[in-house]
Amino acid sequence: MTDHQHGYIHRKDDYLRRLRRIEGQARGLQRMVEEEQYCIDILTQVAAMTKALQAVSIGLVEEHLSHCVVDAARAGGEEADAKISEAVDAISRLVRS
Amino acid sequence: MTDHQHGYIHRKDDYLRRLRRIEGQARGLQRMVEEEQYCIDILTQVAAMTKALQAVSIGLVEEHLSHCVVDAARAGGEEADAKISEAVDAISRLVRS
Amino acid sequence: MTDHQHGYIHRKDDYLRRLRRIEGQARGLQRMVEEEQYCIDILTQVAAMTKALQAVSIGLVEEHLSHCVVDAARAGGEEADAKISEAVDAISRLVRS
Amino acid sequence: MTDHQHGYIHRKDDYLRRLRRIEGQARGLQRMVEEEQYCIDILTQVAAMTKALQAVSIGLVEEHLSHCVVDAARAGGEEADAKISEAVDAISRLVRS
Repeated sequence: MTDHQHGYIHRKDDYLRRLRRIEGQARGLQRMVEEEQYCIDILTQVAAMTKALQAVSIGLVEEHLSHCVVDAARAGGEEADAKISEAVDAISRLVRS
Repeated sequence: MTDHQHGYIHRKDDYLRRLRRIEGQARGLQRMVEEEQYCIDILTQVAAMTKALQAVSIGLVEEHLSHCVVDAARAGGEEADAKISEAVDAISRLVRS
Repeated sequence: MTDHQHGYIHRKDDYLRRLRRIEGQARGLQRMVEEEQYCIDILTQVAAMTKALQAVSIGLVEEHLSHCVVDAARAGGEEADAKISEAVDAISRLVRS
Repeated sequence: MTDHQHGYIHRKDDYLRRLRRIEGQARGLQRMVEEEQYCIDILTQVAAMTKALQAVSIGLVEEHLSHCVVDAARAGGEEADAKISEAVDAISRLVRS
């Protein structure tokens, strides 16, 4: 059951590796500011980091729809409606961010 | 069946009204350029129009998940997987756009 | 002077042509909803239209910085600061939208 | 001169503090995945982190325009054009990311 709830678990190591790389990008940005590097180069890194985060979020949306939402849809009823509505809210925050 | 496929249909008039307003915004932008209005005012209108389009797309994602994806999930099998993967691709295009 | 204020003017026809195409995309979307086409195809069109709008806005930012902001920077003083701050607000609305 | 090139330098501590907080968010996300927390809660954190990164990038754009681009505009010539075009490319990457 827990397995179904959290679809990303079977790719946990992949997500942890990507998030560690993103953490490294945040540290790299601090080094760039510390060393007073050129703003445009810093902005280029910020855009790369934002793209990496988006890729993580799209992966999580996929796992969530494939597992949690599909399970809820099969179970049906109010639970299914609540899950869909919760997923749409999360997607909406991503689209707007 | 068609009803389930295209969840937005029961709110068709609402979508048509919003899209007509967006079409009006596109015409308004042409008038602003024609009248050589200030770039910043034009940019403000472009941002408002982009937000209106995003709201339409989030509404369509919601209808699609609530109807088409839920139906596919209940049907199960490869069809369900294909529908999820198609929806994720569409969401990914929205998040990246 | 007006010429400098509104840098896009020397490419007015290009902007009008792009905005007419965007207006056409808004009408195309209404037709798709009217004909009850598939949500995912509609979402693909919305993403294309959003990208076209972004391209217009980036073009306008470029013209604005190249003309209006450069002129204000040369004039200097509070006017320059006000123009930069106004441009940053507009860019911020685009990045967040 | 270096001072003018890198406008963010006079707020270096502020940027370092914000980037450390973003690094902390990246570590927090790893902990959430490690502890197998709910995808939607993870997605909410990803959206918050993306917003924090956007705020940093808009701040950097502002400093860059206020200092580097204004200086180049005053110096004039090809250097000014090159700086504007470089800034627009960076802004364009942010708007599209």
